[in-house]
Amino acid sequence: MSIITLLTDFGLADSYVAEIKGAIWSRAPDVTLVDITHQVPPGDLRAGQYVLSRAWAHFPRGSVHLAVVDPGVGTERRALIAESGGHRFLAPDNGLLSFLPPDARFLALSIPPRVAATFHGRDVFAPAAAALVTGEPIDALGTPITHPVRAPLPTPREADGRIVGEILYVDHFGTLISNIPVEPAKSGGRIRIAGRDVGPLRRTFADVPRGELVAFVGSGGTIEVAVRDGSAAVQLNTGVGAEVRAEIKGA
Amino acid sequence: MSIITLLTDFGLADSYVAEIKGAIWSRAPDVTLVDITHQVPPGDLRAGQYVLSRAWAHFPRGSVHLAVVDPGVGTERRALIAESGGHRFLAPDNGLLSFLPPDARFLALSIPPRVAATFHGRDVFAPAAAALVTGEPIDALGTPITHPVRAPLPTPREADGRIVGEILYVDHFGTLISNIPVEPAKSGGRIRIAGRDVGPLRRTFADVPRGELVAFVGSGGTIEVAVRDGSAAVQLNTGVGAEVRAEIKGA
Amino acid sequence: MSIITLLTDFGLADSYVAEIKGAIWSRAPDVTLVDITHQVPPGDLRAGQYVLSRAWAHFPRGSVHLAVVDPGVGTERRALIAESGGHRFLAPDNGLLSFLPPDARFLALSIPPRVAATFHGRDVFAPAAAALVTGEPIDALGTPITHPVRAPLPTPREADGRIVGEILYVDHFGTLISNIPVEPAKSGGRIRIAGRDVGPLRRTFADVPRGELVAFVGSGGTIEVAVRDGSAAVQLNTGVGAEVRAEIKGA
Repeated sequence: MSIITLLTDFGLADSYVAEIKGAIWSRAPDVTLVDITHQVPPGDLRAGQYVLSRAWAHFPRGSVHLAVVDPGVGTERRALIAESGGHRFLAPDNGLLSFLPPDARFLALSIPPRVAATFHGRDVFAPAAAALVTGEPIDALGTPITHPVRAPLPTPREADGRIVGEILYVDHFGTLISNIPVEPAKSGGRIRIAGRDVGPLRRTFADVPRGELVAFVGSGGTIEVAVRDGSAAVQLNTGVGAEVRAEIKGA
Repeated sequence: MSIITLLTDFGLADSYVAEIKGAIWSRAPDVTLVDITHQVPPGDLRAGQYVLSRAWAHFPRGSVHLAVVDPGVGTERRALIAESGGHRFLAPDNGLLSFLPPDARFLALSIPPRVAATFHGRDVFAPAAAALVTGEPIDALGTPITHPVRAPLPTPREADGRIVGEILYVDHFGTLISNIPVEPAKSGGRIRIAGRDVGPLRRTFADVPRGELVAFVGSGGTIEVAVRDGSAAVQLNTGVGAEVRAEIKGA
Repeated sequence: MSIITLLTDFGLADSYVAEIKGAIWSRAPDVTLVDITHQVPPGDLRAGQYVLSRAWAHFPRGSVHLAVVDPGVGTERRALIAESGGHRFLAPDNGLLSFLPPDARFLALSIPPRVAATFHGRDVFAPAAAALVTGEPIDALGTPITHPVRAPLPTPREADGRIVGEILYVDHFGTLISNIPVEPAKSGGRIRIAGRDVGPLRRTFADVPRGELVAFVGSGGTIEVAVRDGSAAVQLNTGVGAEVRAEIKGA
């Protein structure tokens, strides 16, 4: 069984996602399709990149990941195929795949002449995904390139004996997810977000009383700030880009 | 592999869609189920019809399309099976299938005696869909009829050297989708919506600066009006039913 | 074909549901995954329990139902496997499975040492679900227990010649679903909700004029109060917990 995952900013109300699925199944009837999400905020490449960067590696090797957040659709922007770790990726060349490691291979996907200028998801990426899962070699679908557009998510820096990072993503629960990985922070120091002290890292929500702020190492491996049974985004009135500081004990 | 697509106005929060899927899989365990959408606005037959009319033909021949937007559930309104172009359709007889061509076959589906009066999706249409994909002939499930309820989407007319149509649907991005097909409009004249000139047809969003209105031929084959990186519905404060005029050059 | 159903309060925007699906498919590549819903209001055990209690029995025997509404994740709360009627269930031990009958079997699921404290859905329940559908016996995954947390949905009582119940759930259409089963109420008496008379039980929405309140026996087998082509929750400004009284004729 082959899997194609889908990530877009198309929402779920319109026919667009179904048109992509129909286009794939018409060419690859046995593939399993799975929605990562279609609720990336319209045009939000950073949110799309974050969600895809977390989800893809949980799928089996051989999976194809089709990602369309594509404000430049129909322009001269290239369409990409990428290969990394036994997975294949299809996406516009706008930075959405910047989480892939430096040794990932990138190809510019050939764009057929008669396609809808505003729906490459259906007319360009879906046929390519179907071709890949039915055994077409990646090199038959495009031309190797060396400099895809890179717009990596920000990384933390060290300053004044602290790791200084920022919020990358706010989830459905209003939990604020930072880019500070666990290792530098696990020394036990205190966490500050947007200038506010939220104490040392805890294990889970229930380590603080209801309605209180809590910092912990989230399931994506970085520091998160949440409110137990509430929303940290609402309580702190903050979001993506907010500064997070993790004290390095003994520094 | 057989496919059953689902389109409803049930939303995704309740158990209803899962009850339909369980009812199908209990009878047809190998079928692939795919959601077209469950976010048709409650009771909005026009939106349901538009979305289904765009999506169905992208699926392989032999697919069954189960569509439930059904304010008259439990009344004497008939339940339909239709066949067209190698696809089968199940829906209440309320105009939802009016996009099917004149040569489509229609049957009145037999309604079993003990069904929930308010949930024909689960108790009438789901078993019928399972029967169809497991090989039951369409004629075993109902009685041919000749006059299903027809409530076709409006079509454009010609007036004063212009094609005069209207907005049929507003998508997730706030893009306004008209009923004016590309051919009559491609002669290069200007487009007006709700009395406002939006220039000639362009190829794609990025052919205008950010925040500007743009008209183009959309992926459904008709004229659309959008705002680059924004919402035309918000910017023009308009929606379904708004008049669209496409100048016919030289007229 | 084996089926695993998923019910969570994770929403559809984040990577969480996809991470669970990937974790399952990496271990059980041939399983069919189906979303019951991911829109349980955050932490709402009662809504989660109601939706799951309606959906599960529609799936084939042998299905596994993975349910995660889990405000206590990462604490000492147990993780459950349950078995009833040929179905298996995986959920935190917080009352979410209280709808299961007294003869259901319960086991405390063994929790692996290295799991994310805040994402047992992915790291504990998903691997267990994959193990179950690939043939692992339930007893290999945990230890039998006799007293899972029970937080059953409220049941109606009789008083003053009436059945007195309450609203358990409000659906996508604003329809108010009570806990009063049809049998005691079918004698023809009148229905009151939140002190307001809504007449006798009807068959379906269209038995009253548009915009009017209507009571009927819903598809879950209990009394519901709706507004034809509208929302009873909005019109009555009420919701979960509102009192419903069904007159017993001749009492």
